[in-house]
Parts: sequence; structure tokens; C-alpha cells
Amino acid sequence: MIYFNCDYNEGAHEKILERLLSTNREQTEGYGCDAYCSRAKELILEQCGTKEAAVHFLVGGTQTNATVIAAALRTYQGVIAAQTAHIAVHETGAIESGGHKVLTLPSKDGKITAEQVETCHQAHIQDESHEHMVQPKMVYISQPTELGTLYSLAELQAISEVCKKEQLLLYVDGARLGYGLAAPDNDVTIADLARLCDVFYIGGTKVGALFGEAVVIVNPFLQEDFRYVIKQQGGMLAKGRLLGIQFLTLFEDDLYLQLSEHAVKLAEQIRETLYAKKVPFLVENRTNQIFPILPDEVLEELSRKYSYTYQERIDEAHSAVRFCTGWATEPSAVEELCADLKRLC
Amino acid sequence: MIYFNCDYNEGAHEKILERLLSTNREQTEGYGCDAYCSRAKELILEQCGTKEAAVHFLVGGTQTNATVIAAALRTYQGVIAAQTAHIAVHETGAIESGGHKVLTLPSKDGKITAEQVETCHQAHIQDESHEHMVQPKMVYISQPTELGTLYSLAELQAISEVCKKEQLLLYVDGARLGYGLAAPDNDVTIADLARLCDVFYIGGTKVGALFGEAVVIVNPFLQEDFRYVIKQQGGMLAKGRLLGIQFLTLFEDDLYLQLSEHAVKLAEQIRETLYAKKVPFLVENRTNQIFPILPDEVLEELSRKYSYTYQERIDEAHSAVRFCTGWATEPSAVEELCADLKRLC
Amino acid sequence: MIYFNCDYNEGAHEKILERLLSTNREQTEGYGCDAYCSRAKELILEQCGTKEAAVHFLVGGTQTNATVIAAALRTYQGVIAAQTAHIAVHETGAIESGGHKVLTLPSKDGKITAEQVETCHQAHIQDESHEHMVQPKMVYISQPTELGTLYSLAELQAISEVCKKEQLLLYVDGARLGYGLAAPDNDVTIADLARLCDVFYIGGTKVGALFGEAVVIVNPFLQEDFRYVIKQQGGMLAKGRLLGIQFLTLFEDDLYLQLSEHAVKLAEQIRETLYAKKVPFLVENRTNQIFPILPDEVLEELSRKYSYTYQERIDEAHSAVRFCTGWATEPSAVEELCADLKRLC
Amino acid sequence: MIYFNCDYNEGAHEKILERLLSTNREQTEGYGCDAYCSRAKELILEQCGTKEAAVHFLVGGTQTNATVIAAALRTYQGVIAAQTAHIAVHETGAIESGGHKVLTLPSKDGKITAEQVETCHQAHIQDESHEHMVQPKMVYISQPTELGTLYSLAELQAISEVCKKEQLLLYVDGARLGYGLAAPDNDVTIADLARLCDVFYIGGTKVGALFGEAVVIVNPFLQEDFRYVIKQQGGMLAKGRLLGIQFLTLFEDDLYLQLSEHAVKLAEQIRETLYAKKVPFLVENRTNQIFPILPDEVLEELSRKYSYTYQERIDEAHSAVRFCTGWATEPSAVEELCADLKRLC
Repeated sequence: MIYFNCDYNEGAHEKILERLLSTNREQTEGYGCDAYCSRAKELILEQCGTKEAAVHFLVGGTQTNATVIAAALRTYQGVIAAQTAHIAVHETGAIESGGHKVLTLPSKDGKITAEQVETCHQAHIQDESHEHMVQPKMVYISQPTELGTLYSLAELQAISEVCKKEQLLLYVDGARLGYGLAAPDNDVTIADLARLCDVFYIGGTKVGALFGEAVVIVNPFLQEDFRYVIKQQGGMLAKGRLLGIQFLTLFEDDLYLQLSEHAVKLAEQIRETLYAKKVPFLVENRTNQIFPILPDEVLEELSRKYSYTYQERIDEAHSAVRFCTGWATEPSAVEELCADLKRLC
Repeated sequence: MIYFNCDYNEGAHEKILERLLSTNREQTEGYGCDAYCSRAKELILEQCGTKEAAVHFLVGGTQTNATVIAAALRTYQGVIAAQTAHIAVHETGAIESGGHKVLTLPSKDGKITAEQVETCHQAHIQDESHEHMVQPKMVYISQPTELGTLYSLAELQAISEVCKKEQLLLYVDGARLGYGLAAPDNDVTIADLARLCDVFYIGGTKVGALFGEAVVIVNPFLQEDFRYVIKQQGGMLAKGRLLGIQFLTLFEDDLYLQLSEHAVKLAEQIRETLYAKKVPFLVENRTNQIFPILPDEVLEELSRKYSYTYQERIDEAHSAVRFCTGWATEPSAVEELCADLKRLC
Repeated sequence: MIYFNCDYNEGAHEKILERLLSTNREQTEGYGCDAYCSRAKELILEQCGTKEAAVHFLVGGTQTNATVIAAALRTYQGVIAAQTAHIAVHETGAIESGGHKVLTLPSKDGKITAEQVETCHQAHIQDESHEHMVQPKMVYISQPTELGTLYSLAELQAISEVCKKEQLLLYVDGARLGYGLAAPDNDVTIADLARLCDVFYIGGTKVGALFGEAVVIVNPFLQEDFRYVIKQQGGMLAKGRLLGIQFLTLFEDDLYLQLSEHAVKLAEQIRETLYAKKVPFLVENRTNQIFPILPDEVLEELSRKYSYTYQERIDEAHSAVRFCTGWATEPSAVEELCADLKRLC
Repeated sequence: MIYFNCDYNEGAHEKILERLLSTNREQTEGYGCDAYCSRAKELILEQCGTKEAAVHFLVGGTQTNATVIAAALRTYQGVIAAQTAHIAVHETGAIESGGHKVLTLPSKDGKITAEQVETCHQAHIQDESHEHMVQPKMVYISQPTELGTLYSLAELQAISEVCKKEQLLLYVDGARLGYGLAAPDNDVTIADLARLCDVFYIGGTKVGALFGEAVVIVNPFLQEDFRYVIKQQGGMLAKGRLLGIQFLTLFEDDLYLQLSEHAVKLAEQIRETLYAKKVPFLVENRTNQIFPILPDEVLEELSRKYSYTYQERIDEAHSAVRFCTGWATEPSAVEELCADLKRLC
């Protein structure tokens, strides 16, 4: 079986494992207070173009989202998100478990707009009974989104402006940020995120690390006591240096971007094969996730050899599915898939 | 100003106040362990046609919903409800505050169907990643709904069957139950609710009491330790007898139903006036809430004299609004309103 | 049976019931936005000696404590309290249910000291692993305490000073505040509370009302959006005017103090009877709760006629119990009890 | 600096790292559904002597405790624990954050007794107002405890019997379980835990793994839907195989026990050195944590070279501290420490 079902089927880039091995017997402080974490934070802040942000390392994405939102919101406040957002769909209600409603907005491509955010905010404050409703206070977007699409810099700026104007907090989930940065049509840098958001995270789990997400907190109010919240949420790794070492390795010598470019290039290869066969797509995008609409008989044939994710039924004979490439995807696997797609489609 | 904006503008039926006065200096046990509560529970169980259910008295609706749901669900379970449901919209996220997601279904008239419930349940269990999603475990419906509509006995039975089959809990919010029971097109009795639901509540606040909701727990599993949950949720009234005395009075001599019939009759009078003028409605129903679509200029004129609830904009010149009658609505006020409607529409 | 077991056995002072009756059919705004609530707030603010505080009315004590604490603390912060505090013992974990740890301090008389608070705070910030511990952020005290004792003005000032110095919030639970104000040895006024605390509440349930607690929020930071929290916690009474009318009546013509003085005077009478018989006490105090240590055989005899609260076993033959007087206690009942105590002790 | 301050200063045993490297590019299912996890579970169940238990792998201890307790308790139930318990002191209120009170019992050596548990339970059910109090439902103990002490099999059996009799759940936190199993005075096996508890966990983080705790759920009721709770609590590792590979390596060829014995042997060496010098101890124990009471001047001297944990002040001139050995402690480091202790004490 060749896995294209997600971008976390393999371990970590070997440079990371080698570094874990070479530093293995060193004794360090626990809980992220070691020199590796410090150095990794410096490298990330360099990319952010600011020294004023705080950087924290957590283990996984759901944990990170729950921790950031718990730290940011008062009990009666909620977080605006696309109806397809990870926090709205795929975290077993972790955000609600922390007491906060996810206020979903309709979206076909995984993105929401500045106008939607403004409308949602205005609807709340203008409703006479707004005290009986959850107060929208944070905006959650993913870059890239769960559907592999990207916010342009202009779109992100527009959302950021609404948030600043209406005193909403802007949070960007970058679980797959690398695959966004590496996309041919991307114009948003990490420094842009640091400039436009209150808080965002750079995903490691899906981009070359064993695990790990680097939270960058720009808004000083959100920085206070964040480590208490991490600990309370069960996210403070005892051997925190494991996270430091991984992000240090990823952000030295541009490894993070190189790994991301590898995956995106392979995704483009699959996409071109499908375009050539005039295969329609559930959503158009140029990151590492591909959402073709294929005949069910083709899918059945493919499923004998490849693992992919079933997305949704389109009509009686067709379904949308997801193929993912990743930092570890073998070019030969992609070639094999493309050959099969050419043959079957 | 004449208030038609809601059904809780006045105090309580005078029989209740008189009884509070006549029993005022009696010394009783606190927290609902008094003889008045016992007697009120007996009267309610008679209506339910069962002696096996447990009855508890709480102060308000949001509190009741939060308490029932906290008692019923495990942390990762959610409650299915119409998108217009009170728990989804107007409780400032009280359900999420207790850790549970409200899983909303689309609805135009405030109702959901057995088919929708079944589909929602099947979608969950058939999704490969269902462990990453909130598990639907309870179905919440209102009778009447927030839009004044009623479930027929057949509809309720169908939902109940799906719930039993799929091991979902069925909870009916009866904040305005009386106005449903009294509706000309109603065919659902309290005994039907006791037979078909796991838990439901009979609303007092909106139907003649100062405050108070009577929760009837049919499912034995949900009965266990319910008083702990009431206390933890801040819903255990020290002088619990106040609730017992009110429900005792409401359920003696059919006062509850009489008060409800009074309100529904007046609502029908308003509705007929509007029908005669061919005024369209946002939703068709025959309980105590009326949702006409009126020209904005008429509404402006009406607003000088009457208080009503703004519901939603229909087009550039028209809006849907809500007029409520209640147990205390004066027939003369309704006559005045009808005269004005005849004149203005 | 004559009830001395608690101070909420009867209904409400008749002036309150009469006013509820005389205003019963008036139509008012709901949720506490009516003229009665406004006027009641004005009267309370007069007593507070400030116009800058916010006043909100809630139904019960546990609800009030949970709401205030939910509004005040971030997720990782806890509330310091005596180990005998109501929030620590008798609220079925309502505070923990809201996510917050109650950090208990040892206490024999229900009180804690400024020194204890300072030590607790210092222990936290000086502990190297304080991020792994709940951060003490609020101090909760009761006036009078659960053991009927009172903080002197000097003691309260000392606690207030520590709180201000260490940026802790000071919250006073005044469930029985009236019985403290009326105590012969009291030197703390409502204006003192308003000057020294961030937030406190004036209890109505135990002092002449059917139910109701008036929260006074002095600290502007805690005032923001408090009504959202009330609603979310299920504490927003639909017919909020019921609370306004009650507090209006209690704070007009000093009724609140008069009712309190009545109870305290009767308690003193019982206390003097016991003193004369050299009965020892679990705790010395002069409010409406009395904690004598009596032989078990005397208690058994008394229990045929009187209801009291069992407090704790002292030795093989003696137990501490609690007798409460209240605003509605009959002088004749106290005389009867005193006669029996004289005879039996 | 030589670190004796805790048992998680280094990485992982090299066999683990090598196996991570050798399996690194394999593609597996995520979220713990891979063959490595399956095989690791089998090995653990062999040690448990049962095939009926469920095994789940989580990342860290606080996360594990929060997840187990969230899965086990209803909202109004609490967990009994020693006042020194990790969940009571060092998890930033993670258990309260999940809504549950930790009901602490006094303890000098980190242990609680069956009698204490029985008394706590009886006090609750016999209290007339028990519905106003948190219901004790789970007993949490650590083996070894936070003070390095061990429950004997007889003690554990006694607690288990009380729990079964009173329908309390027994949960054993085995964060340092290996160091208990390897202690010379231990008579409790993993199979005993599986026989006597409802749920327990085998700690990896402190015993040779990079991170990871293996939860063994014996009670079938607690097994249901546990993975939903893991996910909701942010504890489901995307690359779950990392946990499987680690526990597989630890439980093949008895590595877990060998690593533990290494640490305990070195701890005994330090202990003997201190015994020879007649140094008193805060608590007597024979696992990997050592709690000597030393003169402050000796401690100051030691602190130039060694890292240890400050425990508490004993008198003006003496303090109790903690030295830990671990699976990675160098014998030469222990020899150096022992030489210095001989010289200074």
C-alpha cells in the first residue's frame, strides 16, 4: 500500500533523528527551558522579523488550538471559523470542552472573508439580545486551509484590519504552513503573519518533525502566563528539548522550506496529470493536498494500491477524494500514481 | 406601551401569589424536600401517566437545559438541535460552557425531522475519523419550537423511534409547553411526552408562574444523582417550596391549561385579523407566538404603541416580527392591536 | 417541629409579597432591565457610598459565587478560601465545575488572615515550579463566615491591603451580610465593603427575601460584560423585576437591617441562656448562628421538638450543633427553646 | 553541572532512538492504529496477565491523568488523593479545569490508607447535605508516590477492597512505575495492578522513553469510547507509532525493568552513603528518589556542582531536598556525589 491519505505517515527528517541521537545523553532543564528551545525560538523570531513575540512549543495541533483559545477568551466568548475548520469538525469538540462555542461561517473553499467576519460581528452587537448570545471575540483561519487553499496577502490584511477595528483577535492555524509558504501562488510570509495576527502557529508534525507545533504570540496580552495554560492543558512536554531540537533543525539552513517545496512539487505533478485528463476538482489549490473528483470505479481500482481520503459524494458515480503529498513522499510513488491515473482516467 | 414582545412581562397568576402569601410563615425543609413539592410532583406524574419518572423543579430555562445536558452526556458527546434552537442561539453558550457542542441541523420552521436525526447519526458512525468528531448522543427539540410550531404526535414518535434505535437520548424543551397543549392543532399530550422522551420539562416561567420549570426524567439512568447536578449548576433553590407551591397551583384544577388556552385564543384572534388582511407569515403556526411579515412603515407606526420582537429583514420594505400573547394578556389589548392592524395593513 | 436548623425556612417578609402582588400585572422589560431593578440598585449604591459600582441581582448563593468567579479568573487561576468556606465545601464543586481550584487555608473559626493570604501568595511565586501550580488570584471570604464569626474592619483592611499589593482580587460572600451588620460587635459597613473589596454580594435569600443576592462589583475590570456571564451561568432571571422589587423593599426604610436585628437579638437571647448554663461553644460569635456543644442526651431530647443542624462530634458524649435564628423567627419559639435549654442543661 | 534534580534530564535509551531511525520511512496508519502499537499493547497485556484490558498510549502524565479522570467521572464527582498527589499539586489544576475537585487526604509519606478512603466515603454518604458536596468516586494513588514510597501488596489490596465495596474507581498513577517494580522492598507486580485497579498507567517518560505513558484500562465501563476522550483532551498523537515503538522496545527483553534497576541501584548507593553519615531523611523509601535532610551550608556547597530539588525547610539550618537517579544516570556521577557527601556531611 502506498499512502497518500495524509501528510504524517512517516517519522521525521533524518537530520532531526540524528540530532536527537547526538544530543541524547546531554542533561538539560526540562519543560522547554533549555538552550535548544532558546535557539529554536531565536530562529523563528528571525523569520517573524520581530523580537517582541513569544514562542512556545507544543506537541500537537488540537492541543495547540485548545491551549491558545483557552488562553485568549473569556468564558462567554467564542471563536469565528469556517464551517470546514479543523476546530469546528475534527477535534472532538476540544474547543467546546474548554467552554467556548465555535461560531461557524459558510465556506466552500475552506476560507472566510473579511466581510463575513465584519457581518458576524455587526450582527452580534446590533442584536438587542446580544447578551444572550456568545460574543464573537476571536477569528480562526487556517493557512493553508483544510481544503488546501491559501489566503492571499490582501485577503489576510483585510481580515486583520476588521479584527483590529472591531477588537477581535486573529489566530492563524499553520498546521501545514510550510506547504503554504512553498506554494507557487503564495504571497504570505511568516513575517506577514507576525505583523497581521495576534497569534499563529507553525506546524511541525506535518512538515518533517516527529511532532511539534511552534506557537508565535504577537499580542502582548496573550503572552502573559501562557505557560500556565500549556501545563494545565496537558501540553507541557517534560523533555521539552525534543521540540527545541526539532524546530532548531527545521529552521536552520531552510530545511522547513525545502521539505515543503519537495511536497508541493510532487503535488503539482499529480495535479498536472489530472488536469491533462480533464479531471474536475472539488476545490482548486496549489498546496500539498489535491482534491480530484473521480469516477467510483477508478477510485475502487486505485484503492487496491493507494491509500487516500474519501472526501464526499458528488453524484451517483463520482466522489471527491483527497491525495496528500508530504515532505517524505517518494518521487517514485508519485510517478507510479501518475501513471495509474493516466491509464485509468 | 402595550407589550407583545414576549410572554413573561407580568408576574404570576394571582392564585399563586395568594398561596405564597397564605403559606408564607410556614416552616418547611429547604431545597425542594417539602410537602408542596411532593404534592406538585404527584400532580405532574398523574398527567404523565407514570409513577416511575422523577420530577425536579428548577428556576429557569437556560439553567434547566444546561443541567439536563450536563447530567446526560459524557464529555465528548454533543446534542443535536435545530439551528434555531434556544440552546444553539440564545443561552450565551451555556451548553458549550458545560463542555458540549450543539450539533445544529438546518430548519426553516424550528423543527427537525426523524430523517435528519438518522442522517446525522449515520454520518457520524460511518465517518472513518469519527473519533475525531463530537459524538451525537442527545436530540433536543422544543415543543412548541422557538418559531411557535408544533411537532405532531406522528413526528414525535418518528424521532423517538430513531432515538431508541440508535441509542440517542431524546430531550424536549417545553418552555412554552402549555401554549402547545392548548393549540387547536395539537395532538401531543404530556403523557405522550412521558412515553416518548427520556427527559422533558414543563415550563412555568412563561405560563403563569413567577418562575420555574418542572423537569420530568423518564429514563432511569438519567435520574441517578440528578440533585447533585442541580446543585453544582447553581440551580437548587434554597426555598424550594416556592417552586412546589407554584406548580401545585398550576396543576390543580387545570389552571395551567386554562391560562394557556387564554393566550392561544387571543393569538388566534390576532392571526385571524392578519389573515383577513392577507398579511403573509414567516412561519405558519397556531400557538401563542405570531410571526407576521409587515411593511416597515406599519411596524414603525405600531412601535409607538406596542412592543414586539424584531425577527428578520425580508426585503427592502418588509420585516418579520413576533407578537406574543400570554396567560396575562388583556383581551382589550388584543382588541386594540387588532383594530390598529386592520387600520394599518 | 420548630425549625432552628437554618435561616431560610419561611417565605419572605410580607411587605415583599404585598409589593409583588400590587405590581403583579404591570408589564415590564425582562432580565433585570426594569425600573424596580434600577431603583433597587440606586438604594444599594447609596449604602455603598459610590456611584461607580455595578449592581446585579442573582437568584442564589452558589450561582452567584460561580458567576463572580467565572467572570474574574483566567483558566489557570484559583481562589483562596478558608477550608470551611461555602465554595470549598457546600456547592457540589460548582467552582471546580467552572474550571477553578479552591485553594483552602486552615481555619478554626471560619476566618483567614492577611498573613495567611500573603504566605500563600509568596509560596506560589517563590516556588520554582509555580507554572505547574494553580495561581492564586482571588481571595474569597464570607462576612459573617459559615461559622457565624465576623471580620473586624482592621482585619478586613489588612486583607484588602495584601490583595491590592499582590494584585489579588478580594471577594466577600455576604449571604448572611445583614446578620453581620446587625451584630453588636460589628464595625464593618456596606460602604467599607465597597471601599475594600473588588466585588461582594448582599444576601437576600437568608434575610427576608424569597430569594435573591445583590452583587456589587466595584472593580471596573470585573464589570465588563458581566451580564453575559450571568446568562451563560443560567442565572439571568426572565422576570428580573422580582429581584428588583425584593431588594427595593428591603433597602427602603432600613427593612434589611431591622429584619437582621430581630434575628440577632433572638440569637443573643439563646446565647445568654447557654452562657448562664456554662455551656461551651464550638466557636464564639454574635451573629444569628449559635454553635453550642451539648450532651448527646440533651440533643436527643431537643430533637423531638426542634430542628437544628448537627455540626460535629466533640467527644463520646458531646456534639457541636448549630441553631439559627432568622428574620422570621418567632420570639415565642425562642422563649420555648430557652426554657427547654434551661431545664435540660 | 551534574543533574540529580529529576529523572527526565536526558533523551531516551539508545535502543529506542535506533528503532525510530530504522523504521523512520515506513508508512503507517496514524493515531496509534499501527502494528507497532498493537505489538506493544500485546507485550503490556502479557505483563498484566489479562487479554481483556484496553491499552492506550498518551504523551505525558498530566495529560494522562486529565484524560482518565475526564473519561471516568460524572460532573459532580471528585477524586480522592493524598495532599501531596501530583494531580493535587503539580498539574496547574488540570483536573479542576476538567470540572472535577481533587478531594485531598492528609499524608506524610505520600500514601493514603484504605481506612482513610473508607472514612472519606462514609463521611460523604452519611452527611445529610451530601448532595451539596462533591461525591467521591475515584481514588487516585501513585506507585511509587511523589515521595518515592511504595504501597505494599497488602496495602494496595486493602484499598482495592474498599473501592470495590463502595463502588469507587481505583486509579494508579505509575509515572515512575519501573522504579517501584525495581525497588528491593517491592512486592507489587504489573499483574497485581491489573487485578486490583480499574485503570493505571505505566510511565515511559521517566523510565527510558523520549515521552509516553501506557494507560491500562481494566474496567470495561471505562474502556468505552476512550479514544474520543484522548482526542478531545489533545492527547492523540498523529504519529502514534512513536509511542508504540517506544513501548515495544521497553517491553521487549525486559528493558523497562533493567533500566529501572540501574536507577534504583544507584539510588541505593547514595542512600547508603547518607546512612553511613547518619543523615536523617524526610521520608524513608527505596526507589529512585532520595529525600535527605541536610545542613544548608552543605547544600550550598553541593549546589555548585549538582542540581537537586529543594523540598522544604526543616529548621533554621536544615532543609530537605530531593536527589533523583534515573535510567541514564552515570555511575561515575553517583560516585562523585557520594564522595562529596562523605566529605561534606
